[in-house]
Amino acid sequence: MARTGRRPGNQDTREAILNAARQAFAERGFDGASIRHIATSAGVDPALVHHYFGAKDQLFLAAMDAPIDPGEILPQVFEPGLDGVGERLVRTFLSVWDSPAGTPVVALVRSAMQHDWSARMLREFLVSQILRRATRALNLDPAEAPTRAALVASQIIGLAMLRYVLKVEPLASMTPEQVVRNVAPTVQHYLADPLP
Amino acid sequence: MARTGRRPGNQDTREAILNAARQAFAERGFDGASIRHIATSAGVDPALVHHYFGAKDQLFLAAMDAPIDPGEILPQVFEPGLDGVGERLVRTFLSVWDSPAGTPVVALVRSAMQHDWSARMLREFLVSQILRRATRALNLDPAEAPTRAALVASQIIGLAMLRYVLKVEPLASMTPEQVVRNVAPTVQHYLADPLP
Repeated sequence: MARTGRRPGNQDTREAILNAARQAFAERGFDGASIRHIATSAGVDPALVHHYFGAKDQLFLAAMDAPIDPGEILPQVFEPGLDGVGERLVRTFLSVWDSPAGTPVVALVRSAMQHDWSARMLREFLVSQILRRATRALNLDPAEAPTRAALVASQIIGLAMLRYVLKVEPLASMTPEQVVRNVAPTVQHYLADPLP
Repeated sequence: MARTGRRPGNQDTREAILNAARQAFAERGFDGASIRHIATSAGVDPALVHHYFGAKDQLFLAAMDAPIDPGEILPQVFEPGLDGVGERLVRTFLSVWDSPAGTPVVALVRSAMQHDWSARMLREFLVSQILRRATRALNLDPAEAPTRAALVASQIIGLAMLRYVLKVEPLASMTPEQVVRNVAPTVQHYLADPLP
């Protein structure tokens, strides 16, 4: 759960790259944005983007100010397979949100709702960094995977809103394990049961 | 689904009352705020508050700029009882959100996330105008009702975020009936099945 990499470098150049990246990811989506295009917009060489930020995933996390790299915590959720995945997923999200890293994560989701471009960034984040990993690791039927993933995301994001932003009781004060017992069956159902 | 009442009256006085009401509801909650206290803060007679806005529920809806009065649409959802309530609830929410009234409702939920006071207002709205009605009309066990209602709200608000704000596919493009088939069983489960 380390913070996404912040390597030293010229601050102005870094900021120019990050601004170009935010614009590109919001306008073209994660798949449509290219390092080459972002480098051109920022007026730098693509090699410098790689040097500062690594691969496109890492650049995206830096552009979103993501306090956590889903690639570090999601394998333990998905790799054991469908059996018990609902419990593991809800427990893992709660462990992040209830940790010191949770405050910026909730702030990020909250602020992403406010502008169309930031909502698009959050959507791209969900799809490219979380839902796609789930689809691959769980070997979901590609025809059903987007529906399953979107349903899971609706429950998980709604849970975060109720527990951390709106603070509706008793969800706000439940222990993580109480939340897991209540919500994990829904996530398990969306991922593992036949779709209607 | 009429807009909440806007009676004629002195605009400055109306605005003063609404501002006092927003502050009172955000600070004291729906139950703690009183018409008498709001009238005093606004420097008017309580009778004038009643004259302009009616009962406390109506004043609250006006203070929230609510485009819809839940009291007009929720009886059809809850009064037939637990059987099929999940379907009726999801279908009714979608019919509001997908209607012309839906844009301001989604904007309201979206902007409510942005400040602590507006998040508190939305929480009070959920609890006093929606969850409490559900508890009463469905005759839920008072010991379990808040948990059931908060779980339902987490799924419904998450659905609104994914479908209308983040626009994650395929949820964003599904027909209302497809959404109902996918999400209603979760709402039904939270309201009617034994809690863990």
